[in-house]
Amino acid sequence: MPSNKFSSSPVKTIAIVGKPMAAGIGDSLTEIANFLVNAGHKVAFEVETAKNVNVGNAAVLSPEQIGQQADAAIVVGGDGTMLGIARQLAPFNVPLIGINQGRLGFMTDIPVDRMMPVLADMLAGKIESEQRSLLEGEVLRDGVSIFQSVAFNDVVVSRGSGAGMAELRVQVDGHFMYNQRSDGLIVATPTGSTAYALSAGGPLLHPGLGGIAMVPIAPHALSNRPIVLPDSSEIVIEVVNGRDITVNFDMQTFASVQLHDCVVVRRSRHVVTFLHPLGWSYFNTLREKLHWHEYPSAEGKLK
Amino acid sequence: MPSNKFSSSPVKTIAIVGKPMAAGIGDSLTEIANFLVNAGHKVAFEVETAKNVNVGNAAVLSPEQIGQQADAAIVVGGDGTMLGIARQLAPFNVPLIGINQGRLGFMTDIPVDRMMPVLADMLAGKIESEQRSLLEGEVLRDGVSIFQSVAFNDVVVSRGSGAGMAELRVQVDGHFMYNQRSDGLIVATPTGSTAYALSAGGPLLHPGLGGIAMVPIAPHALSNRPIVLPDSSEIVIEVVNGRDITVNFDMQTFASVQLHDCVVVRRSRHVVTFLHPLGWSYFNTLREKLHWHEYPSAEGKLK
Amino acid sequence: MPSNKFSSSPVKTIAIVGKPMAAGIGDSLTEIANFLVNAGHKVAFEVETAKNVNVGNAAVLSPEQIGQQADAAIVVGGDGTMLGIARQLAPFNVPLIGINQGRLGFMTDIPVDRMMPVLADMLAGKIESEQRSLLEGEVLRDGVSIFQSVAFNDVVVSRGSGAGMAELRVQVDGHFMYNQRSDGLIVATPTGSTAYALSAGGPLLHPGLGGIAMVPIAPHALSNRPIVLPDSSEIVIEVVNGRDITVNFDMQTFASVQLHDCVVVRRSRHVVTFLHPLGWSYFNTLREKLHWHEYPSAEGKLK
Amino acid sequence: MPSNKFSSSPVKTIAIVGKPMAAGIGDSLTEIANFLVNAGHKVAFEVETAKNVNVGNAAVLSPEQIGQQADAAIVVGGDGTMLGIARQLAPFNVPLIGINQGRLGFMTDIPVDRMMPVLADMLAGKIESEQRSLLEGEVLRDGVSIFQSVAFNDVVVSRGSGAGMAELRVQVDGHFMYNQRSDGLIVATPTGSTAYALSAGGPLLHPGLGGIAMVPIAPHALSNRPIVLPDSSEIVIEVVNGRDITVNFDMQTFASVQLHDCVVVRRSRHVVTFLHPLGWSYFNTLREKLHWHEYPSAEGKLK
Repeated sequence: MPSNKFSSSPVKTIAIVGKPMAAGIGDSLTEIANFLVNAGHKVAFEVETAKNVNVGNAAVLSPEQIGQQADAAIVVGGDGTMLGIARQLAPFNVPLIGINQGRLGFMTDIPVDRMMPVLADMLAGKIESEQRSLLEGEVLRDGVSIFQSVAFNDVVVSRGSGAGMAELRVQVDGHFMYNQRSDGLIVATPTGSTAYALSAGGPLLHPGLGGIAMVPIAPHALSNRPIVLPDSSEIVIEVVNGRDITVNFDMQTFASVQLHDCVVVRRSRHVVTFLHPLGWSYFNTLREKLHWHEYPSAEGKLK
Repeated sequence: MPSNKFSSSPVKTIAIVGKPMAAGIGDSLTEIANFLVNAGHKVAFEVETAKNVNVGNAAVLSPEQIGQQADAAIVVGGDGTMLGIARQLAPFNVPLIGINQGRLGFMTDIPVDRMMPVLADMLAGKIESEQRSLLEGEVLRDGVSIFQSVAFNDVVVSRGSGAGMAELRVQVDGHFMYNQRSDGLIVATPTGSTAYALSAGGPLLHPGLGGIAMVPIAPHALSNRPIVLPDSSEIVIEVVNGRDITVNFDMQTFASVQLHDCVVVRRSRHVVTFLHPLGWSYFNTLREKLHWHEYPSAEGKLK
Repeated sequence: MPSNKFSSSPVKTIAIVGKPMAAGIGDSLTEIANFLVNAGHKVAFEVETAKNVNVGNAAVLSPEQIGQQADAAIVVGGDGTMLGIARQLAPFNVPLIGINQGRLGFMTDIPVDRMMPVLADMLAGKIESEQRSLLEGEVLRDGVSIFQSVAFNDVVVSRGSGAGMAELRVQVDGHFMYNQRSDGLIVATPTGSTAYALSAGGPLLHPGLGGIAMVPIAPHALSNRPIVLPDSSEIVIEVVNGRDITVNFDMQTFASVQLHDCVVVRRSRHVVTFLHPLGWSYFNTLREKLHWHEYPSAEGKLK
Repeated sequence: MPSNKFSSSPVKTIAIVGKPMAAGIGDSLTEIANFLVNAGHKVAFEVETAKNVNVGNAAVLSPEQIGQQADAAIVVGGDGTMLGIARQLAPFNVPLIGINQGRLGFMTDIPVDRMMPVLADMLAGKIESEQRSLLEGEVLRDGVSIFQSVAFNDVVVSRGSGAGMAELRVQVDGHFMYNQRSDGLIVATPTGSTAYALSAGGPLLHPGLGGIAMVPIAPHALSNRPIVLPDSSEIVIEVVNGRDITVNFDMQTFASVQLHDCVVVRRSRHVVTFLHPLGWSYFNTLREKLHWHEYPSAEGKLK
């Protein structure tokens, strides 16, 4: 298991991945690389990242090569950067460490200005390891698969702007679930439960729970409610009515779908492993990022 | 006031408007026309409606002519039909009577199979009159108005599918209200509060209250809540960020907007008057149409 | 109109009301009193407030006497203090100015550490005047009124803890609205729309709109939604089922109700007038107090 | 495993449990008993149930004896009846079959008027078996456990009526989760996710998922959201503030708690097994019971 290898091997190969086209982060990347080399580890830069850095003697690897060779990847950027590389590295389950130069993200939880002592501790084995699930989906047209992709946050089937409501017929494990008219339907992982699904009224899912959340967007029926399904579920979403319907994966890859196309979604057999500093708490992140349960007028009183 | 004129004048000019391109409703329309003529009233058919009917001696009028000449209009169809003609007749405030051939609508509240005795009573003055507000909106580009329309339900500014969130900056009466990131923003009348705004989580507004509801669609901020503003409010929505943003009026007329275009919405000076049978109740309609406050498992008990 | 009198008369009688039993605010109250006297105004202390202050030559008045004699009242404390005195002064419509020693409240919007220049400006006529509605309610048992009170925020009918759901039958202006099973029902003013009603999922109502919000607490039916009614509505809530049901007014005065008691709620003929510094914006207060539409992860990106 | 024993053994001991104090169901119970005896099985009546039935030669057993001796229990009544007996039989994991005389319940899914052929099929092995989790909770005062109980639906900590908000401090697995001010907090199983938690805005949890939902009741903070935790979670709820706070288990057993008491909730090691007719679908029940995703005005159109 990579996370064990990360913990156990004294000399590690560590890939560094930076936010694409972010010229200003070169210094941070170099600082990390030097620190790792001085600590006796091997360093590799992701190929796009290498364009913004003085690479020196470090290797330059494609994401696939990182997947095959690295014991861990340090990702410097925001949650979007992490999302992109996590999807690419998912088949290899390289553990990921996230560093953020702005405010902390959900997945990039180490502040750049304190990264050195934190990384030192983590390389010494002081880590919390956490696994996140992914979804895989495909579009069937007349029973033939015409599009496949994976999603770390969500698979979203939604109507075009200017079009009327989408009508979607949903089956789970061969059982009819519902016919839904709405702006669309979000199928989300626990990781995605803090993203678009949350905006649409979905619940927070602890990553340790697993599960797949089905969250409608502006549903026509008042009696709707989000539902959380087991990881084993196979979800089939048939487009029954609507115009300009698309399916997208993590808001990044899109496919236009036609009436009676079916979008099939299930949990991927891959997982993503995050490494956090010891003492990390998922709930801290929720409170900091979401102002979760912050009081509107807590101190509106005379002392 | 037209509704007084409707009540007071013994001989009325009554326009009949049918659902566009609905060939099957000709019999109902003819039945209504004959009934009205026999009762001593003058009948006119809306020009498109006339194509599906044996008009006989009745006049054929454009919507504008109906506005100028009719004491009332009887609309046969669903809520969509009513919505379309109501917007056209709004400048003239011709009272509207709605007849529905399927299940009752919010605005077409007389069932076709009981329409004759109901219409007889209403023509005899047994009516409840009710006024509904409209919105008017325009798009300003570099301060110049490039598009204007009215809305009976709502004005919606929303992102394109496949685009990221829209960021909208909202001012009300010159005061900054909020910067909002979301799929879009619905500005709704009380009539529209049972339509798209309801799907997006907005409250029901009694038509007698008036007011303008601002309901975000899948807002990024957890601390959002819909707000209801006074009728006097002037709302300015500036498009700060986003791609493929459109503004639509009653889901029917659309305009593409660009960054920094401003959508200005205020209450129209026109109103729409509905005539209902005596004893009509808005709350009945809510319960019937929305299953409002119906119990999920009321009778799940042994007697 | 008192607010005109406040603006027009050069010598004003101004009452000072402090948070009850808050010994530590004496200095602030004295500072305000001295400032007003020096500016040529007459000062009176509310009788309970006077116990914590060196009154000097100032008058000491009961709330009723304040109502009869004062041109305005300055309230120092939090929203709870304002709520209490506003209910007592409502019959007299004495304009109220709110000063807060902690974080700003919804109704106490002037920070104590900047109060002197703000009060000077306001006494010079630089004010925004705003009117808020109240509710009045009574409990009918066998048709006889056994309890009456007023509410500035809300009238709440709710079940006892440990009891099953309450079933409430609601009529509005003689029309049946719904039978509701829930933990209770909140009837709120626009002022109350930022209080308990908001926690229970109700909309924000701009005070300029008026209206009465009906917000169920944990309703059994999925198809419920809050509704906002016109100010003219008479609401009758009959207790159909449940144990230990109470009705409370502004969470302060309570009455136990029995099966088939009716709680009747309507808008009071009184209003409360708030005076704000020029430039005051209701929306600012919403954003500051509620973190309204604050972004969860706005800056979670590399610059 | 009892459900295997149910399926495999040709002669089964089957307990019959009826709704308490429901005299009118005696005929149904006798009919079931006769049917079972004729099919060669042994029948026992639950001791309270036996008071309403001509027992004949059948055994009369306490719930504990049923737990020790029965291969299955047939429960005739509503969901409340099932809830009560399921909690008592949980330590023994006797499979349960639910029969409903009124409308179907979530857990009593066989209609009494079709029960005979359905039971015949089920006794022949045509069953779907499903396991449901339970919660166990205790109240700690000064670190000493003063109350323990189990819950099949939910553990609820809530304020008294007429009392202000409760403030609860929640820790999960030793990590601080949040301080919450609200009317209370619901800790629900998937079974309970269709009960009180749903009224308070919680998500539906598929029983196959497991998990524990934390759903606040009328929370003060706008940024709250329900969260679903893993089955392994230990939840500690400390009462920080509030009056008349109680904790209840399935709305049936109550304990008053004091400030700084801690309510500890975790998943029970017991499970409840339901037996359903072959082809049973959880989603059907959701749609039928909750009007889930039923359209408000689906047919409001001319054909």
